Amino acid sequence: MDFLKHTRYVPMNRRRRIYEGKAKILYEGPEPGTLIQHFKDDATAFNNKKHEIIDGKGVLNNRISEFVFNNLNAIGIPTHFIRRMNMREQLIREVEMIPLEVVVRNVAAGSIAKRLGLEEGTQLPRSIIEFYYKNDELDDPIVAEEHVTAFGWATPQELDDIMALAIRVNDFLSGLFLGVGIRLVDFKIECGRHFEGDMMRIVVADEISPDSCRLWDVDTNDKMDKDRFRKDLGGMLEAYQEVAKRLGILNENDRPAGTGPTLVK
Amino acid sequence: MDFLKHTRYVPMNRRRRIYEGKAKILYEGPEPGTLIQHFKDDATAFNNKKHEIIDGKGVLNNRISEFVFNNLNAIGIPTHFIRRMNMREQLIREVEMIPLEVVVRNVAAGSIAKRLGLEEGTQLPRSIIEFYYKNDELDDPIVAEEHVTAFGWATPQELDDIMALAIRVNDFLSGLFLGVGIRLVDFKIECGRHFEGDMMRIVVADEISPDSCRLWDVDTNDKMDKDRFRKDLGGMLEAYQEVAKRLGILNENDRPAGTGPTLVK
Ligand SMILES: Nc1ncnc2c1ncn2[C@@H]1O[C@H](COP(=O)(O)OP(=O)(O)OP(=O)(O)O)[C@@H](O)[C@H]1O
Ligand SMILES: Nc1ncnc2c1ncn2[C@@H]1O[C@H](COP(=O)(O)OP(=O)(O)OP(=O)(O)O)[C@@H](O)[C@H]1O
Ligand SMILES: [Mg+2]
Ligand SMILES: [Mg+2]
Repeated sequence: MDFLKHTRYVPMNRRRRIYEGKAKILYEGPEPGTLIQHFKDDATAFNNKKHEIIDGKGVLNNRISEFVFNNLNAIGIPTHFIRRMNMREQLIREVEMIPLEVVVRNVAAGSIAKRLGLEEGTQLPRSIIEFYYKNDELDDPIVAEEHVTAFGWATPQELDDIMALAIRVNDFLSGLFLGVGIRLVDFKIECGRHFEGDMMRIVVADEISPDSCRLWDVDTNDKMDKDRFRKDLGGMLEAYQEVAKRLGILNENDRPAGTGPTLVK
Repeated sequence: MDFLKHTRYVPMNRRRRIYEGKAKILYEGPEPGTLIQHFKDDATAFNNKKHEIIDGKGVLNNRISEFVFNNLNAIGIPTHFIRRMNMREQLIREVEMIPLEVVVRNVAAGSIAKRLGLEEGTQLPRSIIEFYYKNDELDDPIVAEEHVTAFGWATPQELDDIMALAIRVNDFLSGLFLGVGIRLVDFKIECGRHFEGDMMRIVVADEISPDSCRLWDVDTNDKMDKDRFRKDLGGMLEAYQEVAKRLGILNENDRPAGTGPTLVK
């Protein structure tokens, strides 16, 4: 019964809540160094100025993020992801978050289009990595590598690792989505420091889902991501469902928003 | 009379105007590859939303910039500056401008204080180099090295050269101003490509003056720069005169704003 030493069985409603964000809740995990990431149905935009509940979004993001992170792990891109536990929750490794949103852009859309006067949909001359300082009070301002290293948010070596990870994730996701008729316009990742003994390495953390990507249908340019919510286009849940379906994640009889009995593959 | 071959004597009022900006006019120079930079008295801020004429500012900036660039040239930092011609004009080498404002910050003030939530006057953990894309329509947006190289505004090698120049200029100016009781809070330079035969090198161009620096009196923290104008503090010309005086540029009997006889050292 040696494993019991490091395993505390805590009923779900008694678990210690570590952090509640806009889209997710983090609970203490079953083992030291683990956390449970719970996906809520909250959709927010413009730094929480816009807020709605989209029934079933959390279930879909949990599934899509599971799929992506499992595949990243499989190709040797280190992530925090261990395994999905249930409809809304996944087991992750606790990391020391780096307070940056790392955005990789292939096509101009959103803030870069506005800031640099580019037409939405313009292919960028090459993929561009941007850093935003994750700070709601300051509205997540864009920063340069200079600020990141000067303020010690990450060391130059860590920044190099983060950029290498970001490029690998972009390569993988571009291919994955292209294969199912979706153009990866841009996406955001967050990275953290995972400590194991006296080793530390940078891993991809948080989530990768239609909340954190811009995904356009290759044929119609239809948006299949959070921009449906930001721009009041409607059909957000249907779009996320379609992404999941194309990735082969959803069975016909899976009911993501359901509270009744649901087949868990 | 061989030199006449490459020298056209054109009366001042007949010179071809190449460009008129907010603070300066560029004229065709007397030799190919040269320009005349004329300093106007216009003070502008907030992308020209605020505009005034400050009688004599151009004369002072011409002198201060001459002094700084002469010294940069002397310590081996390449610049466009050749020599001052008269009260308001200097002879410069024509360069291919790189469309960036390169800002070096030692102390938090202005936009970085606002963007990153720092109190004005906070010493930064180290000097920080920032790039702004020089484009009035877009309000000179801040950009990262990624954007600069992706859009081809400068190559990675050129960016390295620019950053090395920026650091050297910061070292020199910090010392220069400290020696006369002034704290160099931040400054902006613009760089260009100077072609000589089939050689190209990056040089410091444009101007370095209280229009493009933040200069605080070491003892009183009084602002001795364009912030006097931006923040309606008054006494802008007096502050610029004081900077010139401390640098040993102005003689007691120099009258920068004057139109009458003026001693030119
Ligand atoms: N492996 C991990 N270890 C520790 N913290 C993590 C890990 N993965 C993600 N996080 C953090 O968990 C939180 C997830 O919460 P959520 O995304 O809902 O909120 P938020 O990021 O604060 O807000 P928003 O995403 O709307 O900007 C984030 O703060 C994220 O940085
Ligand atoms: N050696 C040079 N060769 C060619 N162009 C130069 C050189 N030095 C400076 N310039 C350019 O000359 C112009 C100087 O004009 P000025 O500074 O008045 O206008 P501006 O930079 O367009 O406006 P503002 O300074 O208010 O942003 C700038 O466009 C600058 O880039
Ligand atoms: Mg988040
Ligand atoms: Mg200018």
